Amino acid sequence: ERFPGFTRSTDTRVPVAEGKHIRLQLGDAPLRLQEAEWLDFERTLDLAAGALVRRLRLKTAQGHTLEIRARRVVPLAERALLAIRFEVASIDYTGPLTLCSSIETGRQAVQQGDDPRIGVHGGKGLQVAEEQADAEGARLTQRTHHSGVALICAQRHRLSPGMVPTAALAGEGRVEQRFGATLTPGASVAIEKYVAYDDGNGQAGDGVDAVLGRALRDGFDAIAGAQADTMRAFWQRAGLSVDGDPAAELALRFNLFHLLQSAGRDGINGTAAKGITGEGYEGHCFWDTEAFVLPVMAFTAPDVARAMLMYRYRTLDGARDTARAMNHPRGALYPWRTIAGRECSAHYPSGSAAYHINAAIAHGIGLYLDASDDLDFLSEAGAEILFETARIWPQAGHFNPRLDGAFCIHEVTGPDEYTTLVNNNWYTNRMAQRHLQRAVDAWQRLSADRPDALHALAARIGLEGEEVALWQRAADAMYLPVDRALGIQPQDDDFLAKPRWPFPSREGPHRPLLLDYHPLTLYRHQVCKQADVVMAMVLAGDGIDLGTKRRDFDYYEAVTTHDSTLSAPVYGILASEVGQDEKAWQYFDASLRVDLDDLHGNTDHGVHMAAMAGSWLGLVQGFGGLRVAGGHLRFAPTLPKAWKGYGFNLRWRGCALRVDVDARGVRYR
Amino acid sequence: ERFPGFTRSTDTRVPVAEGKHIRLQLGDAPLRLQEAEWLDFERTLDLAAGALVRRLRLKTAQGHTLEIRARRVVPLAERALLAIRFEVASIDYTGPLTLCSSIETGRQAVQQGDDPRIGVHGGKGLQVAEEQADAEGARLTQRTHHSGVALICAQRHRLSPGMVPTAALAGEGRVEQRFGATLTPGASVAIEKYVAYDDGNGQAGDGVDAVLGRALRDGFDAIAGAQADTMRAFWQRAGLSVDGDPAAELALRFNLFHLLQSAGRDGINGTAAKGITGEGYEGHCFWDTEAFVLPVMAFTAPDVARAMLMYRYRTLDGARDTARAMNHPRGALYPWRTIAGRECSAHYPSGSAAYHINAAIAHGIGLYLDASDDLDFLSEAGAEILFETARIWPQAGHFNPRLDGAFCIHEVTGPDEYTTLVNNNWYTNRMAQRHLQRAVDAWQRLSADRPDALHALAARIGLEGEEVALWQRAADAMYLPVDRALGIQPQDDDFLAKPRWPFPSREGPHRPLLLDYHPLTLYRHQVCKQADVVMAMVLAGDGIDLGTKRRDFDYYEAVTTHDSTLSAPVYGILASEVGQDEKAWQYFDASLRVDLDDLHGNTDHGVHMAAMAGSWLGLVQGFGGLRVAGGHLRFAPTLPKAWKGYGFNLRWRGCALRVDVDARGVRYR
Repeated sequence: ERFPGFTRSTDTRVPVAEGKHIRLQLGDAPLRLQEAEWLDFERTLDLAAGALVRRLRLKTAQGHTLEIRARRVVPLAERALLAIRFEVASIDYTGPLTLCSSIETGRQAVQQGDDPRIGVHGGKGLQVAEEQADAEGARLTQRTHHSGVALICAQRHRLSPGMVPTAALAGEGRVEQRFGATLTPGASVAIEKYVAYDDGNGQAGDGVDAVLGRALRDGFDAIAGAQADTMRAFWQRAGLSVDGDPAAELALRFNLFHLLQSAGRDGINGTAAKGITGEGYEGHCFWDTEAFVLPVMAFTAPDVARAMLMYRYRTLDGARDTARAMNHPRGALYPWRTIAGRECSAHYPSGSAAYHINAAIAHGIGLYLDASDDLDFLSEAGAEILFETARIWPQAGHFNPRLDGAFCIHEVTGPDEYTTLVNNNWYTNRMAQRHLQRAVDAWQRLSADRPDALHALAARIGLEGEEVALWQRAADAMYLPVDRALGIQPQDDDFLAKPRWPFPSREGPHRPLLLDYHPLTLYRHQVCKQADVVMAMVLAGDGIDLGTKRRDFDYYEAVTTHDSTLSAPVYGILASEVGQDEKAWQYFDASLRVDLDDLHGNTDHGVHMAAMAGSWLGLVQGFGGLRVAGGHLRFAPTLPKAWKGYGFNLRWRGCALRVDVDARGVRYR
Repeated sequence: ERFPGFTRSTDTRVPVAEGKHIRLQLGDAPLRLQEAEWLDFERTLDLAAGALVRRLRLKTAQGHTLEIRARRVVPLAERALLAIRFEVASIDYTGPLTLCSSIETGRQAVQQGDDPRIGVHGGKGLQVAEEQADAEGARLTQRTHHSGVALICAQRHRLSPGMVPTAALAGEGRVEQRFGATLTPGASVAIEKYVAYDDGNGQAGDGVDAVLGRALRDGFDAIAGAQADTMRAFWQRAGLSVDGDPAAELALRFNLFHLLQSAGRDGINGTAAKGITGEGYEGHCFWDTEAFVLPVMAFTAPDVARAMLMYRYRTLDGARDTARAMNHPRGALYPWRTIAGRECSAHYPSGSAAYHINAAIAHGIGLYLDASDDLDFLSEAGAEILFETARIWPQAGHFNPRLDGAFCIHEVTGPDEYTTLVNNNWYTNRMAQRHLQRAVDAWQRLSADRPDALHALAARIGLEGEEVALWQRAADAMYLPVDRALGIQPQDDDFLAKPRWPFPSREGPHRPLLLDYHPLTLYRHQVCKQADVVMAMVLAGDGIDLGTKRRDFDYYEAVTTHDSTLSAPVYGILASEVGQDEKAWQYFDASLRVDLDDLHGNTDHGVHMAAMAGSWLGLVQGFGGLRVAGGHLRFAPTLPKAWKGYGFNLRWRGCALRVDVDARGVRYR
C-alpha cells in the first residue's frame, strides 16, 4: 500500500572506478602476491602523517626475493586526489620488472540480504562510457544509468630513473599503463601514481587535468609533506593523551582520524553513518551526524563543524520538501536518511517520524555557536536552519487543554527505534524545548547584532515576531513529566505501562533483536535499542537533580539491549555523571574499540562513526565531565581506575584549552 | 528498509479470459453498436430470476432495423458456468446475419496510480498457452507467469433452426466461432452460448467438458429456470418489504442480491471487500467479511454463512503462519488482507497490527452458532478457529500491574485506520473480551456435548484447561475504561489527548483524507475514518447504559469523516438505538445507495460489500433494533418517518421468522 508523502526513490552510494591498483610482472609472468612466500609484512596507518604505509618482503615461486614499499596518501587539502609512491627493491633478483598501473571497474554495490541496516537494493552500478590510455596517462569515464551523471577517473605518473613506459591498454572497463625497468640485486625502482576523480561539472581548476597537473608538478614528497602539515595542525587542536594505557590512547586517535577523514569537510557532502568506509546504510546521513560527530569537530576542528552544518544549509530545500510531504505548510523537516537532501526512508515509523532530527541539528548548531561564537555563520545560514526547523514543532504539537495547556507532541519516534509513533517522547519534547529556545535566542541575538540580516531573512521566509513568541510559549509550556511512582522521566506516555521484554538473553555474538523480531513485538515491550531518556539527560540534563538521573540510569539500563552502537557512549557519559564509575569504564571501553575489534560483527559494512565520536565524547564528556550550559564550559573530571591520567585539547571561541587529569587533580591551561 | 515478519509477496486477482462477447455481422460488415442509432434500449437485472436481460432496438447506418434480445445467467448452483441466450430479430432487414461468439484475453489488471485502496502493482496478466476452435466449440487455456497455474475457458452453443456454423478462428489470444443465417423481416434467430471455466485440477465432473455437456443437454431455459428456483428459495428466507418507499425496497434487494452472488459459497473461496465485481483491494478479503457480510448471511442464508467460515477454516494454517511471523509461538492470527490465506499487507500499522480481525471472525462464528446452533460446525471447525485465535490475546496483552492487574493490549490498530499502533484500543479490548468468552464457552459446550472431539482437538493443538482458565481471567480483567471528564469510552489511551482535525471541510465530491495526507498527520489528530468505539457499542454494547452510548455517539460523530463506507451503517444503527432517528435515516440512506448512485465515486473499483451488508443491517439492526445477547434475539423497532411500514424475514435456529413494523406496532410471526 502506498500513502501520500511516502518516499518513492532513494539515494545510494555506488562503487566508483578503483584507481589504487599497481601490479607487478617479472619478465612476462605476473607476480601474484598470494602465491609468493611472505617473508616480512607490515601495514601501518600513520595517524600523524595521514598516510597508509605497506612494506612486504617476499620470495617468488621462482625463488627471487623482492621488497615492495608503498605509501598512499589521500590529501585532506586537495579535492579527490589519490597519491601513491610505489617502490620495488631487488634483494637478489636480476631481470626485467614491469609495473602495471590500472583503473578498474566492475565491483557492484553490496546486497542487503535480510539486514535492514544495509541498502535495500544494490541497484545498477555505473556504466563505463569511455576508456583511454597512452604513455602519458589513462582515463576512464563512468555514467549513472538513468540520470547520466558522469564520473571521470584519470591517472598520471612520475617514474624513477630507469623506468620507461612500455604499454598502454584500454577496454573492458579498465585502463592500464605499464612501466618497465631492469632490476639488479640491491637496486630499486619506483613510480609515483596520481589518481584524480571529477564529475566533469566543476570548475576547470578542480578538473582531473588541473589536479593531476598540480600533483605532477609538486611530486609525492611535497604532497605527503602537506598532508603531514595538515595532520599536525589537527593533532595540535585535537591532541589527547592517556597515561598508563597506550592502547586506549591509540584507539582514541584512530577514531578521531576516521572522524576527520570521513566528515563532510567541503560544505557540499554530508557525513554518513559509516563515514566513507563502507556501504552500510547506503551511504546515508542520519541525526547522529549532529548528535555525535559534530560535537567532536566543534571542539577540535571548528572549520569542519561549520562545513558539516553548511551541508545541512545546502539541503535546506530538501528539508522544506520533506515538511510539505508531511503536510506542514511552513518550515523544514530534515529527512531521516539522505545523501542529496531528500527523504530516503521508506519506513516512516522509524524514519520520517523521528522529528527529533530537527532538534539534533539545532543542537549541533547551538554547540558550534557556543564553541565558536561565529556570528557570520548564524546570520548567513544557522539562523535560517534554526528558524525553519523550529517552525515544525508548533505544527506537530499543541497546547493540551487536558493537561492544563502543557505543550504535547504526538506520534513521533524518539532515538530508541524499538518503540515508535509515541506521544510525548521525553527526549523529543526536551530537545524541542531547547531547539525552540535556541531559535528564540538566535532571533534576539540577530535583532541586536545583525538587524538588517534578520530583517531580510524574516521577510524571505515569512517569519514574524508573533511566531517567535509562540516558540517561547511552547518552550515554556513543554510537557516534561516525571513518573511519580518511579521517580523517573517516562520515555513516552505509554512506555512504562508495557511489559518488559520477556525473552531469555541471547547467546553467541551480539545480534540485535531487530534482525529477529517483528517491529510490533518490539514496540509492545519495554525494550530499548539505545539510550533515549538517558540521552536527554546527557544532551539536555541541566537543571535535573542527580537522584532523578541516577534512577533514570538504573531503570533504562535494565531495559536496554544496546543493539545500536550509539548506545554505549551515551550510557557511559551518564554513568560518569551519576557516579557509576565501573559502568562508565565498561561503556567507554565498548565504544572505544567497536571497529578496531569488530565488536558488533559488521565493521565490513563500514565503521561506526557515531561510536567513534562517542569514544571521544566518553573521554571528554564522560570522564572529563564537560558540559556546555548557558554558553559556559563546565568540567567534572573523574579518573578511571585503569589510567594514571589523561588529557585532551579543546578549541573554545578561538582559544586553545588543555585539560589534564591525574590522581593529584585537574589542570586547565 | 525490510524487517523480520514483513510480507514479501501478495495475492492478486487477475482478469481471466472474457467469454461473454457475441458480435454481429450483417453481410461482411461488422455491426458496431456504438455507430448505430439506438431506438430503444433496456437493461434489466432481474433480482427474482437471477438474470441480466438486455433489449436493444437499433437502426444501422445502412438503415436496417433490428432488435437484439439477450439474457445472461451465471447459475449460483453450478460451478463456473455462464449461459447466454442471444436473439436477433429483423424488423425490416433482409439478408445474411453472422453471430461471432468469442473468448478473448488481453485485459490487464487495473493499475493503482496513487490510490492505496487499489492494488499496488498490476503484475503480469495471464499468458495464453493454447487456443483451439472448430464448429463444435472453442477453448482457450491461460497460465500464470511464475507458478504455471492453468485456467481453461471453453464455450459451446445451441443454435436455433436456420443457424449454421460458418467459421472458427483461433489465434492472438482469442478464439471465435461464427454462426450464420439469413434474416427476413419479422423473423428471428438465436444462439445459446455456454461458457465454462476450470483450472484443470478439479474432479472430472467439474471440468469444462462435463459442465458444458450438462448445459447443452439441459438447455438455457432449464438453466435459467433452476436459477430462478434458487433465487426464489433465497428470497423466501431473505424476503423484505418497505411500505411507501419502493426505491428503498429495491435498493435493499439489489444489495442482498450482490451479497449472495459475491459471497464465498463453496467453502474454498473467500468473500472479498469488492465481492466479485471489481479489482479494488486486489480481490482481498478483510475483516468486514465477518463483521458485516456474515451477519446478513447468518440470518438469511445460513449455509452461505457456514461456507464463508469454512473458508477461514481452510486458511487457518495461513493464520498460524502469520502468528509465527509476528513472533507468537502459539495460535493463529488471521491476515489483514488475503486471498489464499497468507498476509498480503505490506503496511503493518494499518495491516497486520489490526489484531481485531481475529475477534471479528470469532464474532462471526458466534453469531452463526447463535443463529444456527450448528454443533457439528463448532466441533469440526469453529472451535479450532476460536481456540487458535483466542490464544493470541494473552500473547499480545498482559495483566498490567500499574492498573491493578487490568488486562491491557498494546500496539494494535482498531477499525479506525486514521489512528494506528495504539494502546488499549477500546473496540479491540471489548471484542477480545467477547472473543475470549466465546472460546471459553465453546470449550465448556464441547466438554459437555462432544467430549471426544474436544479431547482430540485439544491434543492436536496442545491446548490445556489451564490456558482456557487464563482466557477467562483475561476476559474478566479486560481494561475497558470510561473517561471521567467526558463520560465516554476513549478510543485508546491517547486519542482524547490529541487535537481535533483542524482543516477546513472539503468541497466537491467526497474524497477521503487518506488520499491527501500523510498517515502521521492523520494519526496526530482526533479524526476517525470510520466507527470504532461506536462499532463496539453496536457489536458488543450490551450492559452499557444508554447515556454513555449517547455521549459516545455525539462525541465520535463530531470527529469522524466517514471516509470508509463501513462507517455510515454503523453510525446509523447506533443512531437508532440512542434515539437519533433523523440521523439514523441519513446514515441508512447513505449506505443504501453507495453503489447504485456511486456515492463515493469509486464503484468502478467494485461494489462496497460491507456497505451493502450495512444497509440490510441498518434495516434489521438499526430500525428493527435486532440484537443477539446471551443467545437470545431482541428487537426494539422504530419506524422511519419516510416509511409507512417495513418487514423482513429471518432464519433463527432452523425456523423462519417474520417481523413487520408499521405505525400501529410490531408483528412477529
